[in-house]
Amino acid sequence: MESIFRDAKFIHALGIELTGYGYGWCETRMFVSEAILQQHGFVHAGALMTLADHTCGGAAASTVPEDQDVITVQTNTSFLRPATGALVTCRGKVLRTGRTIIFAEAEITAERDGEQVLVTKMSSTLSIIAPRTPKIGS
Amino acid sequence: MESIFRDAKFIHALGIELTGYGYGWCETRMFVSEAILQQHGFVHAGALMTLADHTCGGAAASTVPEDQDVITVQTNTSFLRPATGALVTCRGKVLRTGRTIIFAEAEITAERDGEQVLVTKMSSTLSIIAPRTPKIGS
Amino acid sequence: MESIFRDAKFIHALGIELTGYGYGWCETRMFVSEAILQQHGFVHAGALMTLADHTCGGAAASTVPEDQDVITVQTNTSFLRPATGALVTCRGKVLRTGRTIIFAEAEITAERDGEQVLVTKMSSTLSIIAPRTPKIGS
Amino acid sequence: MESIFRDAKFIHALGIELTGYGYGWCETRMFVSEAILQQHGFVHAGALMTLADHTCGGAAASTVPEDQDVITVQTNTSFLRPATGALVTCRGKVLRTGRTIIFAEAEITAERDGEQVLVTKMSSTLSIIAPRTPKIGS
Repeated sequence: MESIFRDAKFIHALGIELTGYGYGWCETRMFVSEAILQQHGFVHAGALMTLADHTCGGAAASTVPEDQDVITVQTNTSFLRPATGALVTCRGKVLRTGRTIIFAEAEITAERDGEQVLVTKMSSTLSIIAPRTPKIGS
Repeated sequence: MESIFRDAKFIHALGIELTGYGYGWCETRMFVSEAILQQHGFVHAGALMTLADHTCGGAAASTVPEDQDVITVQTNTSFLRPATGALVTCRGKVLRTGRTIIFAEAEITAERDGEQVLVTKMSSTLSIIAPRTPKIGS
Repeated sequence: MESIFRDAKFIHALGIELTGYGYGWCETRMFVSEAILQQHGFVHAGALMTLADHTCGGAAASTVPEDQDVITVQTNTSFLRPATGALVTCRGKVLRTGRTIIFAEAEITAERDGEQVLVTKMSSTLSIIAPRTPKIGS
Repeated sequence: MESIFRDAKFIHALGIELTGYGYGWCETRMFVSEAILQQHGFVHAGALMTLADHTCGGAAASTVPEDQDVITVQTNTSFLRPATGALVTCRGKVLRTGRTIIFAEAEITAERDGEQVLVTKMSSTLSIIAPRTPKIGS
């Protein structure tokens, strides 16, 4: 699990951190910097989708054997409210792990007027794949 | 239109550029750097969704009066193939602009074995909003 | 609320019944007849989507004033398992009612090996509309 | 292909007909009867999703060997305009057939003010499965 977050450069670039996980779930957070804002001063939808997608991927990966991997096939994302504040948190969970396909979903919450509110919800369909053979010399 | 791309810091950070637009369409590209890869060496799904979402937003914005703005309500993205290569290109188009809602979609292509192939397709639902009043002093 | 279910002929035709509702939620059920099966003997995805869509619509309608109505703009549906058995039940709930848009979701469960399991999950985006003025003479 | 439409009882019940197909595409139509309307007098979203889903399934099935079958995993549907008129037509096409997953999409058009307009667009993710063994005696 840690490697999914450690080895994905884009995840580092956005300031996304793994904060907890177990079988079928994964929790993350993203500190909001200027770099991930859109033109109205809210967190960009793309940064939110990146956070949710990777968190779904983490939750999904926790349900397959170590020699298998998962890859996102399809996502659906609803933007319920603009994401504001200094920190957004995300929790992903698996709805079902099938033989070749995993269904997961993730919720992103942000602080708004002093309380945590749901800002984004993603459902994700992932495919179970054999990991790529490491290239010789790499 | 240019301001949508100029004023969104996250778009700059990813190396996304506006390459063309007209009424109801928008074209963009993203140069693939190490910073936007995931753990298998492909472009991260989140970077692809950011590109497609912003390009849908550009296409949608081209169909509303200048004093109105658009915001993404919901997206659906299919990842048909892993995105490889040095450059990905995106074309967004509006399917329908209604009174309060716009339906758009975007296709991302990448080079694979010497030809351009479709790697990602997004459909996007956007809401037409009044632009935020500029803050005094900004 | 009852009128949404009473006046929709397609809902009658499928044997869909309203079983309960309150502010922001709605519960329904559908008795499985031969007429709603697909070629493998499972409930057709279209019948499941009809049930989920109408139940989201019921939940959404419960959150707007009586002189307003809702219409489905977009749905996303995941088919986690084939739906078998004699009866499927559905619960829809509203995630957020905004000024012009409502976000809802619905879960369909069916009996499988003696227990209720999640077979279908839908997220739905709806638009708030003024009801159509009745035509004179109709 | 014909059997997909012949053996699905729900498809018969809705008056859906196969009108043409080839490798990677499928065309269908649905005559609009009272039975498939919703409470505003438009075609019910569920009937439109059934038509689009089954047409995507037909297009997808045309790309796999005869001893394999397809099943819908996930759909995303945009309702661009209400569907009115006496007949709606649908065309589905495959975007990509992978090793275990097929990406397809379908467009439904209806007559409105004397011309055919796009009323519904679906993207669909399907899984390739081995067909169920025929039961003895059936």
